[in-house]
Amino acid sequence: MADWLAALHRRAELRAKAGLTRRLRPRAAGDAVIDLAGNDYLGLATHPEVTAAAGRALAAYGLGATGSRLVRGSTDVHYGLEAALADWLGTDGSLVFSSGYLANLGAVRALTQPRTLLVSDAHNHASLIDGCRISGAETVVTPHADPAAVAAALSAAPGRPAVVVTESVFSVDGDLAPLAELHAVARRHGALLLVDDAHALGVTGPAGAGGVAAAGLAGEPDVVVTATLSKALGGAGGVVAGPAEFVRHLVETGRTFIFDTALPPAVAAGVRAALDLARAGDHLRAELAERATETVRRLRAAGLTVSAPDAAVVSVTAPGPEAATAWAAGCADRGVAVGCFRPPSTPDSRSRLRLTISAGVPRADFERALDVIVECAP
Amino acid sequence: MADWLAALHRRAELRAKAGLTRRLRPRAAGDAVIDLAGNDYLGLATHPEVTAAAGRALAAYGLGATGSRLVRGSTDVHYGLEAALADWLGTDGSLVFSSGYLANLGAVRALTQPRTLLVSDAHNHASLIDGCRISGAETVVTPHADPAAVAAALSAAPGRPAVVVTESVFSVDGDLAPLAELHAVARRHGALLLVDDAHALGVTGPAGAGGVAAAGLAGEPDVVVTATLSKALGGAGGVVAGPAEFVRHLVETGRTFIFDTALPPAVAAGVRAALDLARAGDHLRAELAERATETVRRLRAAGLTVSAPDAAVVSVTAPGPEAATAWAAGCADRGVAVGCFRPPSTPDSRSRLRLTISAGVPRADFERALDVIVECAP
Ligand SMILES: Cc1ncc(COP(=O)(O)O)c(C=O)c1O
Ligand SMILES: Cc1ncc(COP(=O)(O)O)c(C=O)c1O
Repeated sequence: MADWLAALHRRAELRAKAGLTRRLRPRAAGDAVIDLAGNDYLGLATHPEVTAAAGRALAAYGLGATGSRLVRGSTDVHYGLEAALADWLGTDGSLVFSSGYLANLGAVRALTQPRTLLVSDAHNHASLIDGCRISGAETVVTPHADPAAVAAALSAAPGRPAVVVTESVFSVDGDLAPLAELHAVARRHGALLLVDDAHALGVTGPAGAGGVAAAGLAGEPDVVVTATLSKALGGAGGVVAGPAEFVRHLVETGRTFIFDTALPPAVAAGVRAALDLARAGDHLRAELAERATETVRRLRAAGLTVSAPDAAVVSVTAPGPEAATAWAAGCADRGVAVGCFRPPSTPDSRSRLRLTISAGVPRADFERALDVIVECAP
Repeated sequence: MADWLAALHRRAELRAKAGLTRRLRPRAAGDAVIDLAGNDYLGLATHPEVTAAAGRALAAYGLGATGSRLVRGSTDVHYGLEAALADWLGTDGSLVFSSGYLANLGAVRALTQPRTLLVSDAHNHASLIDGCRISGAETVVTPHADPAAVAAALSAAPGRPAVVVTESVFSVDGDLAPLAELHAVARRHGALLLVDDAHALGVTGPAGAGGVAAAGLAGEPDVVVTATLSKALGGAGGVVAGPAEFVRHLVETGRTFIFDTALPPAVAAGVRAALDLARAGDHLRAELAERATETVRRLRAAGLTVSAPDAAVVSVTAPGPEAATAWAAGCADRGVAVGCFRPPSTPDSRSRLRLTISAGVPRADFERALDVIVECAP
């Protein structure tokens, strides 16, 4: 009976031997750390208008939504946010979930019928992979960013409903999916395209409307967009946006929508304020783009292997998981937080530092962080 | 290609014909509605100490956690909350998730190995069902609250690792699972017991520690507890509590923990304040128990079929889905919110009103709500 804990312990020791131990490290409020690890791309999590809007809703509605969206959980704030998101993304409608993870589970499943084929990019996020899994549909994993492979998978299943599932800006390496090609392939085969815009919303596209909008696909009837409200929008929650009939379908049948407590009204209100700032934030996006270029230039000049970022995520190759951990720890010791991605959190067997550029970090701190990363390199 | 929307439309029309349309109805801040539908059992969502604590954390940390728990998302507040939850629940450790839904997905999967048999109660919540599904493990669904059936299922799979999965207070009918018997059966067969304490935490048990504690099972090495922080604790988020080695396993391998943005620090701080109030809230629990008894007495005296509540959920049978909808709408017209559960949100084919008793509703309003429910009955 207590054997199970001994078995878990043995597995933990194996992970430790492989350099794959993970430890929670709490941060204090207002620590002096320079953050190149979080996803607050535009610095909106701490923007006074965002926290003020959240504070007002906290006073007006209380802390929790007190119920699921179909019971007592839908407030005016959720409605306003959904209308604003649809307007921004250029879709008929949108639906707010309590997280991007649950939005993805809900979206993939709602697009799936008994005979549906899912065609999923090899680098897709865990929540999309789990969405495919929970849908029970047959899933073909295609090589990363490979429209020809997607076309082949679709051709091999003629006459079956199909959904092509991809991120826009991939979370680990920061590269952009070939969305226009994927959409053309999907449409040619009568398939739908589901795009997780988590790392592009607020960062790329016209007025920051994300990767789908940047590819000219906003509002297409065969495209569904998902995103999290926790990255450039600085809050929490998720969204699914697309045709009104699909949103209605989600409201009425989406298990991760129906059987889940609504996002707290205060969070929805803060995100609503952040949306307005993000939409008007071309100056922030220009700063982000400049810093991304600068990061690549500096790190490559130091001989490091660095991805070519399409948004605000920069991936730096590490020799192995232990070296990655030591590198990140070295940076942390010098007051710089960087992401450290090792298997199984990476889509391949490579370990890397993952840097997220934020327009909210003071310029001088950002420059210093690059120095520290170079100086701590293995 | 646009066929898919026509197909969704046809399905929506079928649901409408069957009386199963669901509509979102947003509420305004401070509406005068008497709430017998939300899950804010102790009235803590709007408690001044709760909103003040959340407001302070909002000012200190900003709105979002800005990252996953293993990157930048863990704050002192999350740590403090986890320690307080473990202390309250009497477990070695606890881990906070962004929702109860994701906590359940994570817990079920983390308890599952290749050959594991899951034995799941027929009335289990969608998130537990999805957890079984996403785990990929063989799942046997046993009749509701039936330890003999659980024993039979376990006996039929000798030598295999097994997990018995149940709620404590079931969300739809409000009845309590036979936890002590289930634990005895599980232990006899070397199986683990996973209990979702969502509707019991804060409501039943010593100092409100929930159904597992009430059954004397707190801290048992073969028991894992999950709960949501969105009901009696008035906030949002979820928790998994159990042996430290299991918590470590979740931190290092739980996909819905690792690949998800952390709960906003302000929400964690509000929940932390609510926990203290809930723990000290025996007077609130006494009021709840009295109101539950009163509800049953009044509704039965009016000839209605009412469940015998073990906590603060009361289920009232309706003749059918349309009648349930009309009944709930009648109550709403008169300023009383009640839950309306119809297939497929019910574990059987019955429709019902679902009343949730809250100690936060003024006594006179509560009395009036009971009148309205009786007067609107079909
Ligand atoms: C690509 C992608 N999709 C979905 C998610 C999940 O969103 P959330 O954190 O809101 O659950 C994340 C990150 O957390 C992500 O990076
Ligand atoms: C029994 C039960 N488990 C889990 C959940 C999910 O929790 P959350 O709303 O925090 O996702 C709920 C309700 O929402 C529930 O009633």
